[in-house]
Amino acid sequence: MTDLQKLEALAKLIRYSILVSTTEAGSGHPTSSLSAVELMTGLLFGGRFRFDADRPRHPNNDRLLFSKGHAAPLLYALWLAAGKVSEREIMTLRKFGSPLEGHPTPAFPYTEAATGSLGQGLSIGVGMALNAKYLDKLPYRTYVLLGDSEMAEGSQWEAIEIAAYYRLDNLVGIIDVNRLGQRGETMYGHDLEVYRKRAAAFGWEPIVIDGHHFPQILTAYEQASRVRERPAMIIAKTEKGKGISFLEGRSGWHGKAVPKADLARALKELGEVDRTVRGTLAMPDEIRPADRTSVPAASVAYAPDRPVSTRHAYGAALARLAVQYPDIVVLDAEVSNSTFAEIFAKVHPGRFFEMYVAEQNMTGAGLGLSLRGKVPFVSSFAAFLTRAFDQIRMSRYSAANIKFCGSHCGVSIGVDGSSQMGLEDIALFRTILDGVVLYPSDAVAAERLVEEAAKHRGIVYLRTTREDTPVIYRNDEVFRIGGSKVLRRNRRDVVTVVAAGITLHEALAAYEELKADGIPIGVIDLYSVKPLDVATLIEAARATGTIITVEDHYAEGGIGEAVRSALAGTGARVHSLAVRKLPRSGKPRELLDYEEISRTAIMRKVRELL
Amino acid sequence: MTDLQKLEALAKLIRYSILVSTTEAGSGHPTSSLSAVELMTGLLFGGRFRFDADRPRHPNNDRLLFSKGHAAPLLYALWLAAGKVSEREIMTLRKFGSPLEGHPTPAFPYTEAATGSLGQGLSIGVGMALNAKYLDKLPYRTYVLLGDSEMAEGSQWEAIEIAAYYRLDNLVGIIDVNRLGQRGETMYGHDLEVYRKRAAAFGWEPIVIDGHHFPQILTAYEQASRVRERPAMIIAKTEKGKGISFLEGRSGWHGKAVPKADLARALKELGEVDRTVRGTLAMPDEIRPADRTSVPAASVAYAPDRPVSTRHAYGAALARLAVQYPDIVVLDAEVSNSTFAEIFAKVHPGRFFEMYVAEQNMTGAGLGLSLRGKVPFVSSFAAFLTRAFDQIRMSRYSAANIKFCGSHCGVSIGVDGSSQMGLEDIALFRTILDGVVLYPSDAVAAERLVEEAAKHRGIVYLRTTREDTPVIYRNDEVFRIGGSKVLRRNRRDVVTVVAAGITLHEALAAYEELKADGIPIGVIDLYSVKPLDVATLIEAARATGTIITVEDHYAEGGIGEAVRSALAGTGARVHSLAVRKLPRSGKPRELLDYEEISRTAIMRKVRELL
Repeated sequence: MTDLQKLEALAKLIRYSILVSTTEAGSGHPTSSLSAVELMTGLLFGGRFRFDADRPRHPNNDRLLFSKGHAAPLLYALWLAAGKVSEREIMTLRKFGSPLEGHPTPAFPYTEAATGSLGQGLSIGVGMALNAKYLDKLPYRTYVLLGDSEMAEGSQWEAIEIAAYYRLDNLVGIIDVNRLGQRGETMYGHDLEVYRKRAAAFGWEPIVIDGHHFPQILTAYEQASRVRERPAMIIAKTEKGKGISFLEGRSGWHGKAVPKADLARALKELGEVDRTVRGTLAMPDEIRPADRTSVPAASVAYAPDRPVSTRHAYGAALARLAVQYPDIVVLDAEVSNSTFAEIFAKVHPGRFFEMYVAEQNMTGAGLGLSLRGKVPFVSSFAAFLTRAFDQIRMSRYSAANIKFCGSHCGVSIGVDGSSQMGLEDIALFRTILDGVVLYPSDAVAAERLVEEAAKHRGIVYLRTTREDTPVIYRNDEVFRIGGSKVLRRNRRDVVTVVAAGITLHEALAAYEELKADGIPIGVIDLYSVKPLDVATLIEAARATGTIITVEDHYAEGGIGEAVRSALAGTGARVHSLAVRKLPRSGKPRELLDYEEISRTAIMRKVRELL
Repeated sequence: MTDLQKLEALAKLIRYSILVSTTEAGSGHPTSSLSAVELMTGLLFGGRFRFDADRPRHPNNDRLLFSKGHAAPLLYALWLAAGKVSEREIMTLRKFGSPLEGHPTPAFPYTEAATGSLGQGLSIGVGMALNAKYLDKLPYRTYVLLGDSEMAEGSQWEAIEIAAYYRLDNLVGIIDVNRLGQRGETMYGHDLEVYRKRAAAFGWEPIVIDGHHFPQILTAYEQASRVRERPAMIIAKTEKGKGISFLEGRSGWHGKAVPKADLARALKELGEVDRTVRGTLAMPDEIRPADRTSVPAASVAYAPDRPVSTRHAYGAALARLAVQYPDIVVLDAEVSNSTFAEIFAKVHPGRFFEMYVAEQNMTGAGLGLSLRGKVPFVSSFAAFLTRAFDQIRMSRYSAANIKFCGSHCGVSIGVDGSSQMGLEDIALFRTILDGVVLYPSDAVAAERLVEEAAKHRGIVYLRTTREDTPVIYRNDEVFRIGGSKVLRRNRRDVVTVVAAGITLHEALAAYEELKADGIPIGVIDLYSVKPLDVATLIEAARATGTIITVEDHYAEGGIGEAVRSALAGTGARVHSLAVRKLPRSGKPRELLDYEEISRTAIMRKVRELL
């Protein structure tokens, strides 16, 4: 068998597998999978893709991402053709408990990243390519299979522009231009020129081919491998449902499996299928990234009499910890002089990536970096991280290890006004399964929690404040995920105030004034919003009966609701001060009062409850 | 004074106003404002922009959107130059209570839409332009001032591609290419060719000019007005801080006001400023959109024995109500055969806009349409609406009247798996101030609530289910925002189960089985998740002491936390069943059981509590 004949035979086996597995499942996306069969067969088995299938996480493996995640049946069929998925296994597609889920997840060992929400794969590829070129300095190449429909997603163009800017000639996009979206034709159908000229305008090398013609496909990958200083975009004309006449190019088949009654007819069109043929992948060179040494970081050293913002401490912490945690990399969306990621960037420019005003791509790239073993700290204003909620949501399904930092939280940012205020970020990040949400109140806490975040495996969100706040903790204070600090406690406390960040300082001020009036209150710094220190909260609820939560955040989904959930069933009364009025420009103190989350409001609430 | 001399005089006055107002405020973005002075002065006062300043909402006014919202000082200065803001007023910039906020909000009558989160203005402009061209059929033109930094946002390219697709030759973008972003240079500096070739590749007519040269500016607007069948993008080379030598083109001045001590020096550079000069705007033609007639819609008519999905009922409701609510328009992101927006599209194609796989732009366009008096229903999978959280967040600050519909909520979508499951959408939409969150359990409720959404002024979110569910309500049942339905109640109820959507049916099934076992439970359909029917919940809590909430949604920020907040202080014990394990592919029933939100789980919980 010639190489081409082998590829044809493998393509046939893969088509066969796509059809039988989706028909067995009764659902799935066979037509979206069929259009990319030659493209992917040519990639994996054409001799160029270098991947040790026994060590999927080998640092020098080439990477293949399915941005069009609904082509999962193709992904699984490819690996069947590689001998890593059995015929029995592929028939478990979409079944409860099977690693072959409806869209790729890490349950399947050859899934690079969970996809299925369109337009995200190229950003993840950007992260992996950045890693190869600038961090690990390894020759592996990253390939991303893209659908044409999903090229409408702006996030793809963020990835495309950044990839060109960073000269990622180790990144290859392959657009499967099969003309048909879910509901009908895409905006451009088979007008390949549209894609070509846009890719070129954005600085990529376009390579236009017939996506079902193996010689052209192999040539394209070879051509792509020779492009320097810019990424390559293979733009392939394909037919959705290719290979089966009653599916090919027909509308109405998106996301539909061939019914059992029609399967035989479909398979017959494939002709004789050699179900024993298997393809081999080339092996990667045995190169590993240079060992990164770790030396202990300098200690935290804040003077107790000089207020410092937690956002500044965030940046300082990253710079300080960088030597001890050599896998830390930092990404920011053109606001590093506000988030203070710039402090790290100045001392470790090789580990900092300016991602410009494109938060979605920044998040996807962070995922890509985390999947390649880095520990990315990804920052912007808390308000602007909402731009990337879908990417944040999806990163959890890849078991990501990303640390997000949202600065400028709350109304207390002041005169810039509502558009810049993060008021829903705690709610957003609390929805992440097993996500960690940290909200330090002073510089020491911020530094300590940045380190806890670096040590923790999983998604962490750190919320930082714009204003300078007093340093209230000793430099050697210990903070842990799931902990809290009882700052004021007295047996006669009438109520316990639970706060974090800027409102913790308001609570402490309220404490002083109320104490002068003979009204003792407890104060807890709830720096770990998720997971919560439930034991301490229960203890406080038992002791004082009433809890007042105070947060510079909307009422829904934030600290108040989190505390109330933790205390459900205890009989504790929980009152919540939060942002309930339309926010606006004003000085921080004016806004804290206006939104009734200031020391004045706390005192008023305490007196009201007595 | 010649026209050009007048424009120069106005530009000087505007520069003066920008400087004094920001220096007085001690903050703001003067340099970002200064770079666009000629561009905007030439637009407003060059005779082409047609706007009745006494009737800012006039349907045939031209529209000007500041996508670079931080240039708010320029916006206010322009309107001072138009005689609509006094010198005293402009000195209130950023002060608490002033309509001149840090970034534009509707508090200022000439703000078209609240901006400040970059990359959103062009989508809003797309909505306004779609309205002019296809709905109102009015000749007004929409202009969007864009920053160069924000062209990195993918959402801009979504807007750009859709605008070309819809042939919006009544839309003009103006990119203020001042080279400097917040932290430093943009990716392309003053390389105008990059912007030109990208705009051209995306189907716009590029017009490259010197952004400080009035003759070129006026010619550009004239040229733009003659472009047919595609939008025009004016790409203007400018200097950040133009007009003041120590600001012009200098790094480090982003977001910094000129200190009081340096103001005199800056103003001196302007030379003699005629503070009395005022500009006039051309007036729009007195044309109004054709009256849209309203006729009563057909009645809701579902047979009680035929299950129908609420997602299908959503589409059917839109189609049915269209004649009675002529301002309803529908947008969808290429999944209308799944969200069933297609039912409306088939009967009212002129009021349906396919927005392709670009949810951010869809949302921004929805905002633009709502600001022009339409009632947009914007749909996609609930999971994919998270893609547009920043746009949703920002739309609230424009007092938007948008109705979002997220279909395929929960794990009960089944085998497609986690990427497609909306599990955090309730949390997301609950953070919207005064937002409405509705979760109908059957087709009748869905139809009724779509109508309530259409009648309500503000942001509404409707959550729909993929599965067919039984029709449990009479066709004439009344549903109201803030209401609920007590479906099962008995004096001996041991507990009340509060559910909605798919879990409401699980609760009803649990009721039957428990009843057979002699265990009576109450069941409440909490179809209005925000605002909640607090009175009914309190009543149920009093009656049974214990509430069990059940939701096909993550535990954080959803129904459980909402109910717990409503019952805070009542002593009610609230237990919550929700999605707490990593979701996966599986049949709906398997997943409901796996996540312990099924009838079996409800019964188990009830028995456990007894």
